[in-house]
Amino acid sequence: MKNILMSFALIFILSGVNFAQSEKQKTNIATEIRQVMDEQVSAWNRGDIDGFMQGYWNSPNMTFVSGDNVTKGWQPTLERYKKSYDSRAKMGVLSFTDLEITVTSKESAVVLGRFTLVREKDKPTGMFTLNFRKFKDGWKIILDHTS
Amino acid sequence: MKNILMSFALIFILSGVNFAQSEKQKTNIATEIRQVMDEQVSAWNRGDIDGFMQGYWNSPNMTFVSGDNVTKGWQPTLERYKKSYDSRAKMGVLSFTDLEITVTSKESAVVLGRFTLVREKDKPTGMFTLNFRKFKDGWKIILDHTS
Repeated sequence: MKNILMSFALIFILSGVNFAQSEKQKTNIATEIRQVMDEQVSAWNRGDIDGFMQGYWNSPNMTFVSGDNVTKGWQPTLERYKKSYDSRAKMGVLSFTDLEITVTSKESAVVLGRFTLVREKDKPTGMFTLNFRKFKDGWKIILDHTS
Repeated sequence: MKNILMSFALIFILSGVNFAQSEKQKTNIATEIRQVMDEQVSAWNRGDIDGFMQGYWNSPNMTFVSGDNVTKGWQPTLERYKKSYDSRAKMGVLSFTDLEITVTSKESAVVLGRFTLVREKDKPTGMFTLNFRKFKDGWKIILDHTS
């Protein structure tokens, strides 16, 4: 009987981890994701698009939506970025603000936020939603929708 | 020892359900979500915006992003829809196409797709990403990003 009770206790504890993350776990996940995004900003602001792209899932199934355009795959998204931002002047200085991170499971989260590029002659800005998934090598964006 | 092995077997089975959904479970979830979206289309096309809004999480935390605009909460989103589409002519005939449903856990999923409104004089269209969560009363959109 004692063993059976122990089993249920163990199952309950493990299940609790999966079914509903504690506030502490959610905070930890949000911190990890925030770190990935901070590294993206650092990479962008040193002119390193390849580094910036490390935040994205390196897969043909990664999806990048910009306005009405859909780009499928990590490689085409990298090429799109390199084509659109082919000089440091065009890249400007990137910042992410107004971030709202919603943890939807211990392996998935969605981030709403605003990007701003400060450039010499203009200041493009817009909203994004980033769907993150946790992989063996960390949290990666599987779907980016920017408008 | 036998009891300990049993415990691990039970834990493994329960964990398995949570950690990675089987293809069958994913298909079932996608079918349930598709059903919510089909009901939204039916409601819209009979001029029933309140019915359409049943697909959204009825919470002040529900988020609706359209281009550069963020609307917070179910009620303000309902009012926004009613203001933007105050006649059957403006509502037109809605369809959702190019749907890609990604199940991220047994309680969360993200849908990428295109909406089109066929109206007498124009045909507005755009991309959306919908983050769904499963609640006691079914799958609901917690975050809609349309562009």
